[in-house]
Amino acid sequence: MDSQQNKAEMIKVMPDEMSAEFLRILINSGFTEDKAQRCAEVFTGNSIDGVYTHGVNRFPRFVQYIKDGVVMVDAEPVLVAAFGGIEQWNGNLGPGPLNAILATERATALAKSHGIGCVALANTNHWMRGGLYGWKAAKQGCIFIGWTNTMANMPAWGAVDARLGNNPLVFALPHQDEAIVLDMAMSQYSYGALELYTIKKQLLPVQGGYDKNGNLTNDPRAILDSQRVLPIGYWKGAGLSLLLDILAVLLSGGNSTSQITRRGPESSLSQVFIAIDPSRLYNFNSIHTAIQQILDDYHQSVPQNAGDKILYPGERVLETRNNNRKEGIPVSRAIWEGIKAL
Amino acid sequence: MDSQQNKAEMIKVMPDEMSAEFLRILINSGFTEDKAQRCAEVFTGNSIDGVYTHGVNRFPRFVQYIKDGVVMVDAEPVLVAAFGGIEQWNGNLGPGPLNAILATERATALAKSHGIGCVALANTNHWMRGGLYGWKAAKQGCIFIGWTNTMANMPAWGAVDARLGNNPLVFALPHQDEAIVLDMAMSQYSYGALELYTIKKQLLPVQGGYDKNGNLTNDPRAILDSQRVLPIGYWKGAGLSLLLDILAVLLSGGNSTSQITRRGPESSLSQVFIAIDPSRLYNFNSIHTAIQQILDDYHQSVPQNAGDKILYPGERVLETRNNNRKEGIPVSRAIWEGIKAL
Repeated sequence: MDSQQNKAEMIKVMPDEMSAEFLRILINSGFTEDKAQRCAEVFTGNSIDGVYTHGVNRFPRFVQYIKDGVVMVDAEPVLVAAFGGIEQWNGNLGPGPLNAILATERATALAKSHGIGCVALANTNHWMRGGLYGWKAAKQGCIFIGWTNTMANMPAWGAVDARLGNNPLVFALPHQDEAIVLDMAMSQYSYGALELYTIKKQLLPVQGGYDKNGNLTNDPRAILDSQRVLPIGYWKGAGLSLLLDILAVLLSGGNSTSQITRRGPESSLSQVFIAIDPSRLYNFNSIHTAIQQILDDYHQSVPQNAGDKILYPGERVLETRNNNRKEGIPVSRAIWEGIKAL
Repeated sequence: MDSQQNKAEMIKVMPDEMSAEFLRILINSGFTEDKAQRCAEVFTGNSIDGVYTHGVNRFPRFVQYIKDGVVMVDAEPVLVAAFGGIEQWNGNLGPGPLNAILATERATALAKSHGIGCVALANTNHWMRGGLYGWKAAKQGCIFIGWTNTMANMPAWGAVDARLGNNPLVFALPHQDEAIVLDMAMSQYSYGALELYTIKKQLLPVQGGYDKNGNLTNDPRAILDSQRVLPIGYWKGAGLSLLLDILAVLLSGGNSTSQITRRGPESSLSQVFIAIDPSRLYNFNSIHTAIQQILDDYHQSVPQNAGDKILYPGERVLETRNNNRKEGIPVSRAIWEGIKAL
């Protein structure tokens, strides 16, 4: 019980301290100072925004992937083909977040010169939190549509064996000085979420997959046993996952979910980054008024439980960001001590 | 019972006969012969492909909307703004399918000259079956991503009153001489589907919404009573619906779901059509091989029910298309007699 309590004990780490620790470890892992700085910013920023699963909690695995030669610290992405507003890049198995930031920057640059741009990236690594690239594009005044494939972790609709990825899809747009960002995987719950509910001995709020007998269930343990997570919208999310994989391969020339799965540890992914610059079409003030009217109407929704606030995707992030910046980033003592020992 | 049997009695109508009947009625409704021809083709084609709800079964309402002045038969879409690969059009309340075909043609033309193109269309009418535009873009060798907003018909997540549209989203790509097309609304079931299950006195295969007490249910009647349909993936589909509405408004400068709802009968919609020409990046044969490998792996899925075939989105359409062309389009006698009397 003592060791479990220690594991579960949460502490708070100030962003500057976290970032400095990441920087030290990344430089020790072979990164140049500049790249280490940018990578540390991603992991710290995701943590500040409350996406701990793809921030501080994921950092040790990222370092392990460097040691294992899955992530190549000194690889540089290379332009393979280009035509008008579209470009194809090879990520050369470099750090996923750095490749994805470059792809986002290229897509927004293409959007500024062509109105719309699309960058497809082959042979890259896990981008951590897809929403980050939506936030970045929106900060450039651009709409963002992007997705990644993953290794197989979800069965097709009506099937029992995992042949689809959960292939997160991101839609984002600029709003005032910030952004509205939707970052959604094609599975109802991630395996990380199922494990968390299992540890907490809680049922899932909604059905999240099948048990071994093929019945839909709220029991996270039963789904971990069957490995049959539920696609969002049943047949719909399964279909969309397949299409996202095919399109990522078609545009990037890279690996499919099935090829990634056969390779072993999740690597050499295919990703798509589309940006649109709406300011090329018309006046930015009228855009913001129209968006605000939609959000005002949405916020007037009558909640099922009196007092609940109906929030739009990403609306909670700003509050979390401010809190974590001021009060520190919550992290389990065990994870943080593990990181300091790296 | 006799009248119910008559209503339910299904007959088959050959495509040529159906198309000729549509043509006659559309010309009588004020269409030029050319536009009547193209519109008749859409309604017949959707029916041939098995999408009867947005083909023959919907045709009477389309004609009624013309009589009511909701659909303007002689309106022409007009280019409002353009920059590089993006264009903004005003549909001037013309026939939805004709406006959508033009927008698709413009998007694919932009894709061919810029690699990627985006056309946003304001003030248009119901496009009937979104998948049609995916098939059309794919026939031009293009990837297609498109969506429409609708009037409010779905509550936000955690809310009881409908303030979101079901905003169908289409992803499509060319495959061999045909296409892979995903056409999915953000609600798990359409109101049409709920009504059909109610008439057949069947439960829904999966939970499709809430009853009046706020409990998830498979009972279509209870959902029709509460008007609380379920978004795909619960909070995820609700969030995506909101983003699709905002983006359609932002890009087209047209009406939002909330504005459409206040106007009255569903009209003056906002739509987005994105096309990408992957042949600008590399060799088409290698594309087809890569796609086929993904589909082959997908088809090897182990079905939960032995003997079931695991199909990709749109895979069943070709079979339906061939059958309906040969044997005629199934339609209820009552609907067909109603159309012949128009």
